[in-house]
Amino acid sequence: MTTKELVNQIHKKKSFLCVGLDTDLEKIPPHLLQKEDPIFEFNKAIIDATHHLCVAYKPNIAFYEAYGIKGWQALEKTIIYLNTNYPEQFTIADAKRGDIGNTSTRYAKAFFDDLNFDSITIAPYMGKDSVEPFLAFKDKHTILLALTSNQGAYDFQTKLIDGKDLYKEVLEVSKTYENSENLMYVVGATKAEYLTDIRKIIPNHFLLVPGVGAQGGNLQDVCKYGMNKNIGLLVNSSRGIIYASNGIDFAEKARERAGEIQAQMSVELATLNS
Amino acid sequence: MTTKELVNQIHKKKSFLCVGLDTDLEKIPPHLLQKEDPIFEFNKAIIDATHHLCVAYKPNIAFYEAYGIKGWQALEKTIIYLNTNYPEQFTIADAKRGDIGNTSTRYAKAFFDDLNFDSITIAPYMGKDSVEPFLAFKDKHTILLALTSNQGAYDFQTKLIDGKDLYKEVLEVSKTYENSENLMYVVGATKAEYLTDIRKIIPNHFLLVPGVGAQGGNLQDVCKYGMNKNIGLLVNSSRGIIYASNGIDFAEKARERAGEIQAQMSVELATLNS
Repeated sequence: MTTKELVNQIHKKKSFLCVGLDTDLEKIPPHLLQKEDPIFEFNKAIIDATHHLCVAYKPNIAFYEAYGIKGWQALEKTIIYLNTNYPEQFTIADAKRGDIGNTSTRYAKAFFDDLNFDSITIAPYMGKDSVEPFLAFKDKHTILLALTSNQGAYDFQTKLIDGKDLYKEVLEVSKTYENSENLMYVVGATKAEYLTDIRKIIPNHFLLVPGVGAQGGNLQDVCKYGMNKNIGLLVNSSRGIIYASNGIDFAEKARERAGEIQAQMSVELATLNS
Repeated sequence: MTTKELVNQIHKKKSFLCVGLDTDLEKIPPHLLQKEDPIFEFNKAIIDATHHLCVAYKPNIAFYEAYGIKGWQALEKTIIYLNTNYPEQFTIADAKRGDIGNTSTRYAKAFFDDLNFDSITIAPYMGKDSVEPFLAFKDKHTILLALTSNQGAYDFQTKLIDGKDLYKEVLEVSKTYENSENLMYVVGATKAEYLTDIRKIIPNHFLLVPGVGAQGGNLQDVCKYGMNKNIGLLVNSSRGIIYASNGIDFAEKARERAGEIQAQMSVELATLNS
């Protein structure tokens, strides 16, 4: 999917919501556990209930990997279901991969070619030749970890290099990578005040903002400081939506919760256009 | 496996060789492609031929993930084969994972509990709460990326924080993590001259040294500057061993190449003891 198509979807749906599919057998409604593939059944129901309210889905790959081959089968079915039934959705493999060149190429092929995700999250620590193999794929997007929303972000990401935070160095340096127009960045919503600085370095790139909801970010701040003329934001909510209920009404409650966030986003988008 | 057991194996075999299983259908001998599971057949033959010359095996997870569910099946069969037939081998999932707490826990369970690997490689960028879930597993080892052997290492790892390279900050900070005795570190062999500094910070931890062979490291230098009283080194070779031949003699040639490296290691160990 091109960035332009993503922006069009945002305007059409008045939403820049990404629904995180952190599907956990211990948290999904118990009645689903009798199904042959409870993970996929859960995802399918969540997707069917929320697709008109969001523009992206983000399976958290760890949750699938944790169930071994059955987990991978559920992941494959989920991405095929999305690409077949809702091809307008932007899909994110939240995998946080990164390795030396020929190994990164393997990961890129696995997620971009074989699974046909639109994007993948990548850790920057190993630098240029670990990231560029992902950037080489046309109309695919590499979402680099910049400033994450967890406590451990302060261990290294905000340490100063020549007076500049490491995460800003990641932004600056990655801009020089080949095909850097295919970059997006993970920026934790709990640090909305940092967004002004971030936008000075990368005014045009999309930001994937986790942490609105369970991790405590504030949507209004994120929009105020992070939005650009192409919107430039995907705001993720995982547990707040998909585990809104663990009864038989789970999909309905997920839709309600997604609808509440979409309504807030609609207001923010209207403000931008006014 | 405990560190002590690993050290005992090193002395017994006079080897600290790790064989990297970067198994690639485009590189393995063509006659294996007719088998039902060529990846596993290749790994099994390599393991049977080299197990007496090495103390560790390191499947590079990307190579398995690239083949989807079939790849995961081959990975599962490989680790089961190792744990059943050669339980004395130290096993490394070269996965370079790292995510927020509850997600890291998922990855840890997948690799430590379900697949029963002894260790996993982890990226440090997300800090403490992304690493500690792995460290919580008893007799399992978390191998943190410190200084990698690729060109991109210079993008961030060697940038100065308060006059200290980022990778040294990673070593210093990670030493303070809970259960840090379960840490090992990835240190690229092409930078053997850095090992003196590294050993000042972490005199006792094991180092996993990639890049002897294809990436151009020098075994003597690595030993000179990196060895400690517990040896403290695992030196990896992947392509140089497993693709020594792609004919029907591939396992025999792999054994020869592993034997050459083991012989060099034996000399280095004798020097240490003299």
